[in-house]
Amino acid sequence: MTPEMNSGFFLTFEGLDGSGKTTQLRRLTTWLEAHGEHPLVTRQPGGTKTGDRIRALLLDSKTEGLAPLTELGLMFSDRAQAIAEVIQPALDNGHIVLCDRFTDSTEAYQGGGRELGSEIVLALHQTMCGDLQPDLTILLLPDFEASLERARRRNSRNGEVDENRFEREGNAFYRRVFDKYHEIAAREPVRVVVIDGDQPIEEVHQNVVRLVEAKLSARLKVTAAG
Amino acid sequence: MTPEMNSGFFLTFEGLDGSGKTTQLRRLTTWLEAHGEHPLVTRQPGGTKTGDRIRALLLDSKTEGLAPLTELGLMFSDRAQAIAEVIQPALDNGHIVLCDRFTDSTEAYQGGGRELGSEIVLALHQTMCGDLQPDLTILLLPDFEASLERARRRNSRNGEVDENRFEREGNAFYRRVFDKYHEIAAREPVRVVVIDGDQPIEEVHQNVVRLVEAKLSARLKVTAAG
Repeated sequence: MTPEMNSGFFLTFEGLDGSGKTTQLRRLTTWLEAHGEHPLVTRQPGGTKTGDRIRALLLDSKTEGLAPLTELGLMFSDRAQAIAEVIQPALDNGHIVLCDRFTDSTEAYQGGGRELGSEIVLALHQTMCGDLQPDLTILLLPDFEASLERARRRNSRNGEVDENRFEREGNAFYRRVFDKYHEIAAREPVRVVVIDGDQPIEEVHQNVVRLVEAKLSARLKVTAAG
Repeated sequence: MTPEMNSGFFLTFEGLDGSGKTTQLRRLTTWLEAHGEHPLVTRQPGGTKTGDRIRALLLDSKTEGLAPLTELGLMFSDRAQAIAEVIQPALDNGHIVLCDRFTDSTEAYQGGGRELGSEIVLALHQTMCGDLQPDLTILLLPDFEASLERARRRNSRNGEVDENRFEREGNAFYRRVFDKYHEIAAREPVRVVVIDGDQPIEEVHQNVVRLVEAKLSARLKVTAAG
């Protein structure tokens, strides 16, 4: 099966920092490659030269007094660049695109966490991203407290003290993010699949693989590596 | 008359590069100060610490492949920051705010020049800037060819060769910007006043002063400096 025979497939991973989504994205990438795919892997914010400069502005702990609407606008500026430069071309060429965070993150963090609400985020998505929606979104939602604890441990490892702007937020902020993620999943049950992130990494991976296999059974090569 | 007795007044200057708007803004600032005002002067993009970083990204001639929607999103991110941090607080304190470029520039340059259309720009304005509109916009529109020639002369002075991203655009781009400015002025004849920028600087200044006096007669102190 050649890439020309496939249409692209857009898969996003979502969840709190420390939910294990980046690990799972890497595991899935390896699995897809073992099945004859050449997935394009990217992340938001960032993933383009311009996006990395926007990401630096957004995450830099030294960026002070960023207005919530500015943060929101920068997120979508980054996203528009990633779509134009990376995501849409890859989809047009029939690739599977794996993206670490997309508009659901903006709705959860800026809409929920910063309390800007979903409406403004979805309006900006429509204006800045056209009608691009993921074909599948894997939302890793572990127990709230356990997820925070993992993020804290990760930050204290290597003696890191310079947490980024989001990592400095308090628990009430993360609770709002968490609740908004649940709200999104309830609103879009076909696109968004919630996986319990408290399971062992290997079990989560097997769940992810089963989901992806079900969606992409027609195109995946059967190999011994499965 | 104390500032507490006044409500703020938001005045923007618009026009092509080389139209003389920055010169006129400075002249008007001096005139207002001579009449007992403490105007806040700013420019877009930029005017805040975050905005200056966005401005650098937008204007840097080394920024390549910026998607038109990204450019648009960055313009409004900058604007949202300027409103939150500088413009709205000054207006709330009763100041006159003079701003070198505002949303009309985005409509003219991105909507017209980059051919994104007015609709998306006005939609983003509503989302990102709330209902903030200038009380008065002075649009300096010289003859099209003369304006381009002034901009070219200014860039070649001091042997500058590193024109910014907009200055590198061709004449067709600037023609679309020019036409869009005319369209805005025709659509909003009360807010937007067009002044012929081909007159001598002093005459343009006198026209600007007459306009501002008419709008602000109740609050301006009469001094000998008029």
